[in-house]
Order: sequence, then structure tokens, then C-alpha cells
Amino acid sequence: MRVNGIPRRTIWLGADGASVEIIDQTRLPHDFAVARLGTVDDAAHAIRSMLVRGAPLIGATAAYGLWLALRADPSDASLSGAGTALLATRPTAVNLRWAIDRMTAWLKPLPPAERAAAALQRAAEICEEDVAINRAIGAAGLPIIRALAARKAPAAVVNILTHCNAGWLATVDVGTATAPIYAAHDAGIPVHVWVDETRPRNQGASLTAWELLNHGVPHTVISDNAGGHLMQHGQVDMVIVGTDRTTATGDVCNKIGTYLKALAARDNGVPFYAAVPSPSIDWRVRDGVREIPIESRSAREVTHLSGRLPDGSVATVALTPEGSAAANPAFDVTPARLVTGLVTERGVAEASEAGLRALFPDH
Amino acid sequence: MRVNGIPRRTIWLGADGASVEIIDQTRLPHDFAVARLGTVDDAAHAIRSMLVRGAPLIGATAAYGLWLALRADPSDASLSGAGTALLATRPTAVNLRWAIDRMTAWLKPLPPAERAAAALQRAAEICEEDVAINRAIGAAGLPIIRALAARKAPAAVVNILTHCNAGWLATVDVGTATAPIYAAHDAGIPVHVWVDETRPRNQGASLTAWELLNHGVPHTVISDNAGGHLMQHGQVDMVIVGTDRTTATGDVCNKIGTYLKALAARDNGVPFYAAVPSPSIDWRVRDGVREIPIESRSAREVTHLSGRLPDGSVATVALTPEGSAAANPAFDVTPARLVTGLVTERGVAEASEAGLRALFPDH
Repeated sequence: MRVNGIPRRTIWLGADGASVEIIDQTRLPHDFAVARLGTVDDAAHAIRSMLVRGAPLIGATAAYGLWLALRADPSDASLSGAGTALLATRPTAVNLRWAIDRMTAWLKPLPPAERAAAALQRAAEICEEDVAINRAIGAAGLPIIRALAARKAPAAVVNILTHCNAGWLATVDVGTATAPIYAAHDAGIPVHVWVDETRPRNQGASLTAWELLNHGVPHTVISDNAGGHLMQHGQVDMVIVGTDRTTATGDVCNKIGTYLKALAARDNGVPFYAAVPSPSIDWRVRDGVREIPIESRSAREVTHLSGRLPDGSVATVALTPEGSAAANPAFDVTPARLVTGLVTERGVAEASEAGLRALFPDH
Repeated sequence: MRVNGIPRRTIWLGADGASVEIIDQTRLPHDFAVARLGTVDDAAHAIRSMLVRGAPLIGATAAYGLWLALRADPSDASLSGAGTALLATRPTAVNLRWAIDRMTAWLKPLPPAERAAAALQRAAEICEEDVAINRAIGAAGLPIIRALAARKAPAAVVNILTHCNAGWLATVDVGTATAPIYAAHDAGIPVHVWVDETRPRNQGASLTAWELLNHGVPHTVISDNAGGHLMQHGQVDMVIVGTDRTTATGDVCNKIGTYLKALAARDNGVPFYAAVPSPSIDWRVRDGVREIPIESRSAREVTHLSGRLPDGSVATVALTPEGSAAANPAFDVTPARLVTGLVTERGVAEASEAGLRALFPDH
């Protein structure tokens, strides 16, 4: 997608051929800055500290991280140690394990001397595959938005609510939840996006708003508290979110607060979709609420917040009284019963085991 | 309640006998500061700019505001003009109209020369009545918490989630939703409060946390997004919130986001209560979602946030990219069907017309 008119991805091979470059997302929307990852430790840090985030981009970064490890040391121990270190960075997104398992299965049979070159090629393929998946999700989701538009008055705006950032910044490009939105916008369907700010890290207010603004999609930032009220008053035509892990039975694990929006959508007859690239499906898990490990992040993400001072510099301010504790579960699980459909790269599936198996019989 | 060990109320007659003093709540939790209101314009500004907030405290401040108006000019025009100006400050809380209508009905029949003294006396009575109501709400709600404690293991903590601030800072003293919590804590029942931060103005993170901390009640601040996840995992035993206006049929209008917590409570079998002092009941309204005017506040409350810099000074930072719009509905309505009970000063009512009429047959 474009940043100030220039096409960009979120991750790319450095010009030196020996590093990976990423957009440092911790500095958005205030600064657009590129960070260089020269080692697997850099890659692990970038994932853990959320310079990159979003399940698909985490997977892509881990793939490149394995390349960086093998460039320095192509041994079995290096491959397995790097995989373990990268896997430990974040517990919830299944794409991380998917990318590491896949890369390891490819690379381990190779002679050590061939591994680095192969890893680079495979990491690039994972990135290209991500973009292709997201474009396919866009094509699969576009008819949903078109149908909503057709039910409204001519030229009436379709209002779409999204939570967190499942945009191109969460992927290599295009995004998952945003893919149908960008497709509709580019097809001339008037869309407007309600952007949940998504506390505590504000990925909606800082990342989704920033990318919609850069692409020229009309949008309005709201507090996470506002969506239910908007749905009660007919101001939301559909909800679409991303996912960090979706179970074989269609339970959708996504950013904390997603479940609350799904409940409100159900209570008001608003369709609720998740955009689910197949690498985000965990075929081994059946009960999302009981089985998916939910990352508990630092309390400081709740008690402190960064933003732009009037002089343009970025400062971190404390929000709570000194002495008050805070808790920070980072994801929740929306049971399949609340999900209208899963928009995958192979089409829209019912949120159920039967629905997913019908589209992915190979799993 | 106590601040640094010293008993305080949120509003009191100034030592000069010619003004009202309040805690400037816009400066909490970072600074404890007292503001002086010398004119009705000061009182209107304090309500509009939320130096005072919370339905009961807004009513009390309006009552004192009428006194300040009549001190300066006891004429009919002054009384009616002050009432109109105060009523226009905020549209949702019904206590504002209740206090102004009541004061006007008392004062208008009096000779102008007697009005100021009578207004001062009546405003003080409204404050005392608020405190008495809140203590009665505490007594009515305490058995609910006691029963929850009795169902748990001995000495197990009762986890109570609350949204926004319906604490003593929202009233003259004691609070509404906090009244049963303080009563339980003071009775030796181990309680722990999940404090929703309550974006965009963060009344939970800044005010509820601050007052629980000062009173020594264990609590943990969470993002507004987290409550559903906690309920899914059995970590919430009950929800209790305040109200800005409750309809004759039991629909509860309260801070934006309350409805989402009520939905999650229902989905997880968690009891959901509203603490409802009778001045917050609007007997003229039957359909909360359709009839209650919802205040739309400045977008800047969403796009900017204030907090404490490391040096202790308070700064305001921008959260969103320049160019992104924001919307800020301040309240939502939780339909009576989602409410387990209304904790009033006369006992716990079913959230229905029959339930409320049984306790308040005089309305």
C-alpha cells in the first residue's frame, strides 16, 4: 500500500542483502521510521517489542529471522535454537509457529551450506504467499460489502466497524480485515470505517487510522466503548476483524475486546465477520476459550500511553495513580456461535468445523 | 471518604460563606486541587468542563449554582435564567433537571429577599439527601456481595467489575455503585475491584482507581476491552455500575461501554447490577435506547489524552494521526432485559416498570 504516495510493504530485504528492513510500528502514527534487523536477536526483539505485530507479519518476520540465524551459523543447533527463541516471543498468534515449523521442515534436510540461501528464498515466498492470500480474502469479502451496499439507498455509505489493526500493517501488504474494505473502496463502493482505538496499545487509533488515511478511505476513530451504542442506532452495517488464531471449529481469537463487539453485533443483528488467512487456523485446537493461551502483557501498557506533544515529539504519560495495579490480557476468544462467517482466501466459510473443512479438505 | 486520611466530600460551602468549593476532578489522579465557584457561571463551567461529574454531583452542583445566582440577583428572571443555563450544560444526566426543577419549585414562591438563604439551605439538604441515599444503596447492595462471598470458598475474594466512576467522586460522598463495595470492604468481606479505565475520559483509571486506593480497597485497572475475557474465565463475580438516567421501565443509561459489559455478563451468567438513586430515575421515559438524548462530546477527548510526565507535570498528547476524524458519544443504554437488578435506596428492584413501581409507588 502507499505511504505518502509511495508503494510500501511492511517488511523487505535490506539493500545490503544482509539484513531485513521493517516499518517500526511503535513509532506510528507520529513518525514513519524504518528499522534494520541484522540478526535473529533483532528479529525476536522486533516481534516481542511489537515493532512488527499482526499474526501474518509476525510469521513473515520469523521466517526472515531464521534466515538471519542461518546466515550467521547454518548448523542444526542454530536452526533449532533460532526457532525456539522466535517461538517464545509471543504465545498467541499461531502464524508464528506455522512459519517456523514450515521453514524448519524445508531447511533441516538441506546441507548446512545451502540453508541460508534457501531460507532467504523461502522467507520471500512466505511474504508473497501472504500478499496473495490477502488479495484473495479481499476478493472473497468484496461481495459481502457489495450486497450490503445494494440493500441501502443509492450512494449511501456502508459503515464497517473494525477492531485493532488487521490492515496491511499487520501483514506483508493489503491486510486481512482491510482487504475487502480496500477492495470495496477501490471498486467505488462508498465505505466508511469505524476504527476502534483498541486500548491498551491503540493499534486502531495509531495504525488502522494511519493506513486508512494514507489510502484515502473515510474513517472515524472511536473509543472501544462506543461500538455497541453505534450498533443500537443502526450506524454499523457490518463488523470485520482479523484473527491471531482461529480454531478448527471456528472460534476466533483476536485482540482483546473483539468478543464484546461480537456480542453487540449479535444483539443488534449486525453481521460479524473475521478475515482468516489459512495460516491463522489452528487445526489442532477445538475449544478456543479453554485451549488458546492468552498472552498477558505488561501492566505498563495499561498504566502508560505514548502520544505526540504539541511540539511534535513523542512522550509517554502515566494515566493511573501510583500504587494502582493493572492487568493486561492481550487477546480474547469470540465463540463461533457469534461469528457470521470466516472470510478466507478460498471463500467465506461458516464458522464451524464443517464450514472450514469444506473449504480446506486437505487439513 | 478519606483523602490522605482526611475526610472529604466532593462539594462544600466555602469558608467565606459566599462560594462553593469542589475537588477539581480534571486534575485527578495527578493532583488533588480544590476549585472555588463564586458565580453561577463558575458552576455551569464546572459541570460543562467536568471539574465535577457524575449524575448526583452534577445535581448538587446545580443546586448550589442556583444559590450563587440568587445571591447576586434574587429576581424571577435570575432564577429562571440560571436554571436554563445550568440545564444546558449537559443533556444526559436526569439529576440535573431534577435538582433544578426541585429548587425552582421551592424558591419561586418565596419573596426575592428570602430566596438566597433558602437556596443555600435547600442545596445543603440535597447534598445530605444524596449521602443518605448512597448509604442506603450500600446497605441494600451489601447482602448481594455477602451472598456471593458465601458461595465461594472461605476467605475467597469476591471480584467485582465496575465501569466509569460511580464512586464518591460522582456523588457528594460514598458513591452509588461503590457504596455496596465500600460497605462490603468495611464489613470485612474480601473484595477486589476490576476497574475499567473508561475511555475516552478515563474516569475509571483516574478517579475510581484513585478513590479505591485512598480507601484501601484492592483493585486492578483494566482496559475497557478486557472485561469480557475475564468473565469468560470466571474472574468476575458481579458487575455493578452507576447510572446517569434510568427509565421507568428499567433501561439503564450510563457511561459509554456499559452496554458491552452487560452483554458479556449475560453471556457468561454474571449478575449485572446498576446502583440507582431515585433522583436518577426518569419516570417520563419508557424506551431508553430511543428516547434518552445521548451527549456527543468533543472529538478531542478521543484524539488526545492527558497524563503525568516522568517529572510529575501533566501533559496532553495526541494519539491519532493528524487528519483522522473521531466521534465521541458519551453514554449508552443497557436494556432492562440485561440488568439483574437495580440497587436503589429503598432496596433492590427488578429492572422493570413493575419492579420500580413496587418500590416507588409514589411516582
